[in-house]
Amino acid sequence: MRLPHPPLITLLTDFGAHDAYVGAMRGVLLSRCPAVNLVDITHEVPPHDIRRADFLLAAAAPWFPDGTIHLAIVDPGVGGSRRAIVLETDRHLFVGPDNGLFTRVADRAAAWQAFELDPARLGLSEVHPTFHGRDLFAPAAAALAGGRGAEELGARVSNLVRISLAKPSRSSVDELELVVLHVDRFGNVVTSLGLDSRESAPGDPPWTIVCEGRPVPLPLAATYSEASPGTLFAIWGSSGWLEISLAQARADTILGVGTGDRLVILRASRGRDRA
Amino acid sequence: MRLPHPPLITLLTDFGAHDAYVGAMRGVLLSRCPAVNLVDITHEVPPHDIRRADFLLAAAAPWFPDGTIHLAIVDPGVGGSRRAIVLETDRHLFVGPDNGLFTRVADRAAAWQAFELDPARLGLSEVHPTFHGRDLFAPAAAALAGGRGAEELGARVSNLVRISLAKPSRSSVDELELVVLHVDRFGNVVTSLGLDSRESAPGDPPWTIVCEGRPVPLPLAATYSEASPGTLFAIWGSSGWLEISLAQARADTILGVGTGDRLVILRASRGRDRA
Amino acid sequence: MRLPHPPLITLLTDFGAHDAYVGAMRGVLLSRCPAVNLVDITHEVPPHDIRRADFLLAAAAPWFPDGTIHLAIVDPGVGGSRRAIVLETDRHLFVGPDNGLFTRVADRAAAWQAFELDPARLGLSEVHPTFHGRDLFAPAAAALAGGRGAEELGARVSNLVRISLAKPSRSSVDELELVVLHVDRFGNVVTSLGLDSRESAPGDPPWTIVCEGRPVPLPLAATYSEASPGTLFAIWGSSGWLEISLAQARADTILGVGTGDRLVILRASRGRDRA
Repeated sequence: MRLPHPPLITLLTDFGAHDAYVGAMRGVLLSRCPAVNLVDITHEVPPHDIRRADFLLAAAAPWFPDGTIHLAIVDPGVGGSRRAIVLETDRHLFVGPDNGLFTRVADRAAAWQAFELDPARLGLSEVHPTFHGRDLFAPAAAALAGGRGAEELGARVSNLVRISLAKPSRSSVDELELVVLHVDRFGNVVTSLGLDSRESAPGDPPWTIVCEGRPVPLPLAATYSEASPGTLFAIWGSSGWLEISLAQARADTILGVGTGDRLVILRASRGRDRA
Repeated sequence: MRLPHPPLITLLTDFGAHDAYVGAMRGVLLSRCPAVNLVDITHEVPPHDIRRADFLLAAAAPWFPDGTIHLAIVDPGVGGSRRAIVLETDRHLFVGPDNGLFTRVADRAAAWQAFELDPARLGLSEVHPTFHGRDLFAPAAAALAGGRGAEELGARVSNLVRISLAKPSRSSVDELELVVLHVDRFGNVVTSLGLDSRESAPGDPPWTIVCEGRPVPLPLAATYSEASPGTLFAIWGSSGWLEISLAQARADTILGVGTGDRLVILRASRGRDRA
Repeated sequence: MRLPHPPLITLLTDFGAHDAYVGAMRGVLLSRCPAVNLVDITHEVPPHDIRRADFLLAAAAPWFPDGTIHLAIVDPGVGGSRRAIVLETDRHLFVGPDNGLFTRVADRAAAWQAFELDPARLGLSEVHPTFHGRDLFAPAAAALAGGRGAEELGARVSNLVRISLAKPSRSSVDELELVVLHVDRFGNVVTSLGLDSRESAPGDPPWTIVCEGRPVPLPLAATYSEASPGTLFAIWGSSGWLEISLAQARADTILGVGTGDRLVILRASRGRDRA
């Protein structure tokens, strides 16, 4: 794969900002590849939340140039039997644990191949069993940045561990059950209804949503700023998911939902019947 | 404008660290301008707080080299009628929404001109109405970093939207009312009394301030470390604003104030009369 | 000292992410040395916590390439009588206040020399007494990055201020008292028992630890993932300290300890006797 110049490595972890872990990992990367450009996606994935890491990686990675190396580490099974891999898609390289973290990016790739990282091929003698980020994944990413091919780093892997992806579920023509994939900093509730499945919505908007025990109308807006303050609305977000938002306030709070929770949207008339 | 080499883009947003938004934006910048140097000012502006963004941008931006491009996005009106602009001052370029965010940096510039970003001139066909940071502002900043002039990106704008700036207000010769512009991580309360207006203070220090219902002396210190633990004091902070601080503790907590609140400082004798 | 190319400056501070302080400091560094590579270790050291800064710096700094310049600023005495220094070890350069922040990195260096920063030699006329990070330390680090020698920046200093380092303390052959050096994002409790003192442990594992008032076994694990959910275990962490962890949960919460607290581990039989 042809790399950008200088080579570019992104970082996505659940290490947070208040420990020395990210710093140590950056030090290893720069020791092995001084010219590399290090760019953070986020280090604030909730601890051990593979599902969230998969979602955030798929939202950010496509915007990086071809040949970008993504170092993605949310690794509750570090030191255990899970494999350490490099995944090469038609556009990018991904390095991290084979625990489902790469489900969406592999699904969306036109083609991919993967290899299990072999410490010997990387010339690594000491790999601490609790910190593969520093001792295995960072050296692997630096090797790729230095021009080594993914296939040089270990044996080919034919399938990846996958997480199950939440799909909208239709209990009747009038109801669609969604899962909350993420709540962003503004309180926007990102749901599992993707633009490519928009025909599964229960009729045309405005739909109905139950909020604080009562059905309320859920119009579809084109921008966050067009609704009246305090009004709930739906909107197709910038990564192609239907979001539920509340004008000038947090939708998650008023709906009482968080990541992983379920939400139902209803055909408008059905909602009125219920009320 | 002559750019540094490599070109330098700073980022200031209210996107926070736990979403994929900043990552996606960095990806777009690096896709369009691989050699650019990306540097964060902060992504922790409170959501939609234009006033705070204006304050923080004015505190950090002047320290960057001539030709720096500042990408500043706190944009509650994204997708609506507010303009997207590039502002060129005698020293720097600023890209972001025209919602008052650039009030202080424009006021302090020796000269400025501004242009409304035109997606067509940037060759942009798809601009998602909820994420101009990724789809409009980042491409504009990358175009500037690539050497295009601000005036090539759109039609000239003759005036900018302004926020009203809090000024100290003197109800009598013995009292000065201030607004809290910011509370920093250490609990220092940054007030709206600037060094250039110091003659509006009610007499010479020590002043008096009301704390927990009682007037207490407010001496003026030169360093944070010279006051006895637990003592309130005033100090001219590093950005030229009078701060109220508490030795080895948080002043905001004991004063019970946050950003946007009002504070009164009194001539010392007046304070004693009141007590 | 031979510098990497481009020169590399790391940042470790207690400035946090929501103020303009880090941004201003980055601006000064880039104004004075446009080609420098800026890399964060952390800005989330708890305010004024010199002890934590010393611990985190020692955990991250060794992983950076030879010739790295570490700018480390946790500086409650800024503007007072504490010295501002540059510390040169056999591998790295460190710039910051002489308040104990460099205790571990100096202890571990094969050799070191230090110099007190002299504003005049740096050509600095205005140094604000509350923000040496921006006005003194950043210019000093930039000067080093530009190729000036540490010895050019001020007079030699023969000894450094030290913090006392917590040592494990053995009240009997059956008990070892440890201090909590740090609690990481995952709730792992990093103790003051280092690998190099492992013979001071009270007998062989499993040890006993008191949790919620009762003695419970404390086996020694090799990886975070091998213990059954809800089980406490000890593990040699990636920086060489014994950690107390709880499988798939936070150990600090169940043990009721935070940084600076004391913990006792007991010989297993002794623990059983007590129960």
